[in-house]
This record gives sequence, C-alpha cells and structure tokens, in this order.
Amino acid sequence: MRATDVIVKKREGGQLSREEIRFFIEGFTRGEIPDYQASAWAMAVLLRGMTPRETLELTLAMAESGEQLDLAGVVPLAVDKHSTGGVGDKTTLVVEPLVAALGLAVGKMSGRGLGYSGGTLDKMESIPGYRVDLTTEEFLDQLRRVGLVLSGQSVDLAPADGKLYALRDVTGTVPSIPLIASSVMCKKLAGGAQVIVLDVKCGVGAFMPTVEDAARLARLMVHIGAQAGRTMAALISDMNQPLGCAVGNALEVAEAIQTLRGGGPVDFREHCLHLAAHLLHRAGRSPSLRQGRLDASRALASGAALSKFRALVEAQGGDIRFVDEPDRLPRAKVVREILSPRAGWVLSVDAREVGETVVALGGGRAMKGDPIDHSVGIVVHKKVGDRVAKGEELFTVHAADAEGAQAAEARVLAAHRFSRSRVEPLPLFYRTIRG
Amino acid sequence: MRATDVIVKKREGGQLSREEIRFFIEGFTRGEIPDYQASAWAMAVLLRGMTPRETLELTLAMAESGEQLDLAGVVPLAVDKHSTGGVGDKTTLVVEPLVAALGLAVGKMSGRGLGYSGGTLDKMESIPGYRVDLTTEEFLDQLRRVGLVLSGQSVDLAPADGKLYALRDVTGTVPSIPLIASSVMCKKLAGGAQVIVLDVKCGVGAFMPTVEDAARLARLMVHIGAQAGRTMAALISDMNQPLGCAVGNALEVAEAIQTLRGGGPVDFREHCLHLAAHLLHRAGRSPSLRQGRLDASRALASGAALSKFRALVEAQGGDIRFVDEPDRLPRAKVVREILSPRAGWVLSVDAREVGETVVALGGGRAMKGDPIDHSVGIVVHKKVGDRVAKGEELFTVHAADAEGAQAAEARVLAAHRFSRSRVEPLPLFYRTIRG
Repeated sequence: MRATDVIVKKREGGQLSREEIRFFIEGFTRGEIPDYQASAWAMAVLLRGMTPRETLELTLAMAESGEQLDLAGVVPLAVDKHSTGGVGDKTTLVVEPLVAALGLAVGKMSGRGLGYSGGTLDKMESIPGYRVDLTTEEFLDQLRRVGLVLSGQSVDLAPADGKLYALRDVTGTVPSIPLIASSVMCKKLAGGAQVIVLDVKCGVGAFMPTVEDAARLARLMVHIGAQAGRTMAALISDMNQPLGCAVGNALEVAEAIQTLRGGGPVDFREHCLHLAAHLLHRAGRSPSLRQGRLDASRALASGAALSKFRALVEAQGGDIRFVDEPDRLPRAKVVREILSPRAGWVLSVDAREVGETVVALGGGRAMKGDPIDHSVGIVVHKKVGDRVAKGEELFTVHAADAEGAQAAEARVLAAHRFSRSRVEPLPLFYRTIRG
Repeated sequence: MRATDVIVKKREGGQLSREEIRFFIEGFTRGEIPDYQASAWAMAVLLRGMTPRETLELTLAMAESGEQLDLAGVVPLAVDKHSTGGVGDKTTLVVEPLVAALGLAVGKMSGRGLGYSGGTLDKMESIPGYRVDLTTEEFLDQLRRVGLVLSGQSVDLAPADGKLYALRDVTGTVPSIPLIASSVMCKKLAGGAQVIVLDVKCGVGAFMPTVEDAARLARLMVHIGAQAGRTMAALISDMNQPLGCAVGNALEVAEAIQTLRGGGPVDFREHCLHLAAHLLHRAGRSPSLRQGRLDASRALASGAALSKFRALVEAQGGDIRFVDEPDRLPRAKVVREILSPRAGWVLSVDAREVGETVVALGGGRAMKGDPIDHSVGIVVHKKVGDRVAKGEELFTVHAADAEGAQAAEARVLAAHRFSRSRVEPLPLFYRTIRG
C-alpha cells in the first residue's frame, strides 16, 4: 500500500477501507508518512467528505495511536461531559463536581485554551497551588479516592490527533465535520469514560455556526461513541452570546463557585443542571431526566457539589481558601463599569467578539504556549432579551492597564446590539441527540 | 497575507488574485511556505479548479521564479515544439532538425524520461559522446552557429515548477488541468521560444485519456502562451498505440534517423510533417499549412533535415558515425521476433502497456535518477487497422536477458487485441487549436 494511493482514492471520492485508514494514520504517527502527504489527504477529506463508517475507523485508529486509559478497572463507572468550546463556558467546573457528588466518577484530562475559546486547565490554575500535571498514578489514585480529577494529559492520549490537528491548523483543513468529530472522539475514547455527554455549541462564538451543522457533528460523534461501546448523548446548545456572565479565567472560577453555592447567573445554572441531568440519566443514576434534574438541583442546594469541588482543589494541591473566599482570586488592576449608551432590549452580545477581547486583554492565547493573565476578563450584566435603561451598568472590564481597558470597552460595546422593541431571550439548548 | 488564507480561499472555491498567487509561489520557491501547505493548496486547486486568468498568473509566477532565456537577442526567431509525453514519441529528433534546416532556430532545454513516457535527453544519449550538459554560453553559441540545440537545463528554468511538480508527484495532485498547463507553459515561456507548437497527446498512453480533456488542456495552454505574447498552436494527437514502431532509446534514435533519411514508419513520418508544417506556418516561414507541408517534405527528401541532425550531434560532441551507420547504436543481447498467435485485424496496441514494458526491460525510469539501458525496447510491426496473418511477425523484443525478454513478450502480446473483421486505422490527429 502506498500513501499516494490512499490520497488519490479519497481525492476521487472513494471510501477508504479500515486497512487504508490504519495504514495512513499509523504511518503518519510514526513519521513515515510525511506532513505534505497528510495535509493533501486532509484537504481531500475536507472537500470529498467521509462516511460515518470511515469516520469511525479514523477515530479508532487515532484513539489507538497512543496509550488508552482503562478507568473501568479503577471505578465502577466513569463519566465525562465534553464541550466543543465556547466563550464563558465554565460548565466543567460545576457539572463534574455535581455528578461526582452523586457518585459518578469523573477522571478528565483537559486541554488548554487557544484563541477565543477558553480552557479548563487555565481556569483552574487561577487557584494558587492547583496542579494540572498529575502523574498517571496520581490521576488514578485521586479518581479512586475523590471520584473527581481535572488534570492535563499525563499520558499521550491519541498522539496521532495531536499531530494531525497541528497540521490541519496551518493548512486550512480544520472545518471538516468528519475530521472534527474524529479529533474530539478519539481523545474521549482513549480517556476511558463509559458514559459521555457532549455539549455541542453553535452560533457566532462556536466552530459550528448553525444548529444544522452542530447537529450533523453531534450525530456523527454520538454514532462513533455508540459504535465504540460508550453510552452517549449530545446536546446542541447556544453560543451566540457568552454562557453565563463571566469571561476570563479567575472571573469564571468565581462564577462557578457562586453557582456551586446555589447562586450564579440563571442561564448558566440552567445549562449546568440540564447537562448534569443527562449525565445522571444516561449513567443510570437517575431513572428519568426529570429525576436527574431534581437530583442535580439538590446536590447544588445541599452543598454536596461545592464540597466535591473543594475536595478536588485540595486533592490537586490548590489553596482551598480561594474556594471559600473567591474574593482572594487574582484581581485585575483596572476594573471599570461600562454603562449602557441607550435604553431598550439587548438584541445580541457577540460571543466571539467578547472572547477575542479577553484574548486581547491577555486572558487567552493567540498562539500555543503564550502566557496568560488569569485576572483579566469581561463580565456582561445583560443577556439577550434583557431590558436595559440608559446609564445602567452593561458590563465590567477587568484589565491590566487603562489602555487595555479602553480598547476592551470600545470593542465589547460594539459587540452589543439593542432593539427598541421587546426581544425574545435566546434558547439555552436547541436539540438533544441520543446514542 | 498568510499562506493559510490563500489555501482557505481556494478551498472555498474562490478566485485567487495575482498578488495571492505570487505570494504563494514566491514563498514556496524560497522555502518560506512549507511543503505541507503547498500540497494542501495543490489539492484544493485540483478539486476546486482555477480560471484561465488564475492559471495564467500561476504560469507567469513560476516562469519568473528563476532565470529566463532571451533567445530573441541571439537569433531572429526561435521556435519550439513540445509534446505532453507519450510512448515511442521521438518527434523532436525529426521535427526540430527539419525546421532548423529551413531556417527556424530551435534552442531546446529538455528533460529526462520518467515512467512509461520517454525523454529526449535519454534518447540522444544513445549516441556515444553526445553531451546534454551544455553551459548557457555553449547553448547560446551553438544556437547562433548551428541553429539547433537539444540539451538539458543549464539554467534553472522555472525552479518553482520543479519543486511543485516533485511535491505533486507524491501527494496525488498531478492530474489537474490548470496545474499541468501551468507546469508545461512556465518552462516554455522561460525557455524563450517565440513560436510554440504543442503536441497534446490523448489516449491510454497519455496523461489525458480523452480528446475532450486534451482539448481543454490545449486551449488553456494556447491561451496562456498567447497572453504571454507567444505565437501558439496546439495539435491533439493520438496516443492509444505507440507513435511509429520503435519504443526504447537507441531503437527510437534509429527510427528517427531512418525517417530523416526519407523512410521510417508512415504514421510517424506523417506526424512529423504535420507538426513541422504548423511550425513553419505559424512562424511565417511558409505562407500556408499546405506549403509548410511541401517545404517540410522537401527538407526530408533533400537530406537537409538529416544534415542538420548530423550537425547537431557533431556540435554536441556525439560520434557522427552512429548517425551515418545506425547499426552501431547500442544493441540488446537478446533480440526476439514474436509471431502473431492469430489472424485478423489489429484492434488495439495498448501504448501504456508497451511503455511500461520498456521501463520493466530497463529502458525507462521508475524513479528519478535510476540508470537506464539504452539498448532495450520493443518494435511493433503492426499498427491498429493492419491486417495480420497467423505466424506473421508481430513485434520484436530487445532485452538484456532471456528472462526479461520472456516477461516482455507475454506483456506486449497481451497488449495486442485483434478483430476478425476489418478495423479502421486510428487517426493521427484529432484537432488543431490556434492562438
């Protein structure tokens, strides 16, 4: 078999066999198939597509390209929720402790943020001392003991994906639904969770602009997971405006803690309860979605979820005083309240613009490896559909200096649009796809 | 401007601007745009296409990526004919001396053969002493003195094309009409000929399988040449069966000399006269095509074309005794006549199979840089439409050993198909495209 033949077959719109996909991915991972062949292949896949069968084979080949965690040997049932990435998405910090408090073990190896979409590791590192570099032994031990781990990759999960994604990023071959689906799912499969709920974002602040695109991606990922023996669900959720109010690492941790204490923004709280209910139901912990939602609400109200979060921070070396008193979290030098320039209803708050503003403030990365400032960010006070009076507080800028604050103020103001007549709030979720 | 943006624009089916194409080709030539971006771009071009305007810009960018010969400063009018490559295609060895004998200067920098399609340099090197490594000074001096040069590239003509072609060859991105057209034409433009006649092959032994594809390629190349100020014509010719009878380096030189002496296979002679007539007419040397054909026939009959070939060989250090007595040319150890297994009419002689057989015999290259055996090859005695009796000589195998001869015999026999009823001969040419 020759790499060129595999490229030509896909270029001509053919369906690749299991053997051809394995040959290509294994050769690429070992460095025997060079980048220039892999990028031509990726472009052919992007333009010609892949069947669900091919996408499954690609996912499995990448999942098996490195080590695979066997969590079933450590805990009775390991679950995970995965978001395709968004602005203000601190769901992991609430949902994972919540379900862990109800007995579902969560051992999650997360990544860092890149571009306007934040990363769980960066958020957790706002808490001084919190370690994201657990060894595999520490990871498994903590999973057994605490039932909850949020760490970086101690083992090389799906190295083929890491290599291919880096190449796609610089060759215009990212926006392919089969390639995105396999990239997400290979890491999930290698990560070892048996029940997986996907939070697939759509809108201006997400990879997938429309509900239809997001649903296609979601169906494909659910199919792959189910074929690989996992219990799956996917929720299509809105990412036109930021999720909750806080965008920026320490600000999001504070908002997550607020929510774990039973407060927090209504939309974010709802989002978390809905995801948790699906996890609890799919995992068999709650007999129905309705009951899952009740169980989740009780875990928030009782403080059980917050206790689990506290236990997580403590287990990973974080200073729990920052959980108990979130005012201690890194605070930006310049904090400026921005008032609404007009009265009316909020028509849109462009999630991507807000996300990019936080990157510009230093709270995110333009390039891999860039340092980040955990203290900076934006807190929006009004969501789509909210009524606002002229001069009322619209959002808060947290910046390292006055200059940054001024640029952020202008940009986030421009990201807000208003209407003179009543506006319907955006839905939180559009659709559910079960596997 | 970023390379990724140019790739994405083409991926989305957009038309690239002059600036975008120059940026990409210049960056790639300088090594600033890596192979993995160029191959993804080439795949996007192959699958999305390019307009004639984009293809012209690409051709010019590649033509200007290295040195460009200015032949107009050396001779009053430089002409060239270029074949897209075929099996048994020794046309250059006859047509170029022929038109040079009639006063049209030909300074040609040729390439070597690769795969089943032969190369002029390899053929000429069958003549001991013949140098294909002239310096630019020697090249221009001989052009001035003899009016005819057939050498390798002394200057780096269109290095962008060399680099891109090598990459396309291993990334499944060869069969794109815009990429093929620009690859051929950038070298022709950089080579400096003012009148160019293209011999575009179609059929099983050519890049382009159908007349329609070949005509599309031809029209595009004629358009590019005309836009670049050259006088152009393109002939679509048949490459379903070998051209003439001989396939293999020394065997083809012998057949070319035979033809220059007024003999040779009828089809090959006709092919050369037709091409020469177009060159003479387009260059203004003959007032009509009909007159061009007469002039060409006379140059063969008078021995003027042969004399010019002799002068060429002498000028480039070749031993002219091999021109005067072609029996001296390298001869294979095993020469075997193969008889027809049946009576009837020849229905087809698969050009590609015959070409591949010669490569297998050692007469061509599977990979760049492979050594070749000039003596081996196949001589077919019957062409499509010829009547053949059972036991009559069908073809001759020239091989280095008995084992090779046996394999070749089987393969070339299988490449012949017969009919019980009369078969029309194949046309030599299908269409003429003028610019």
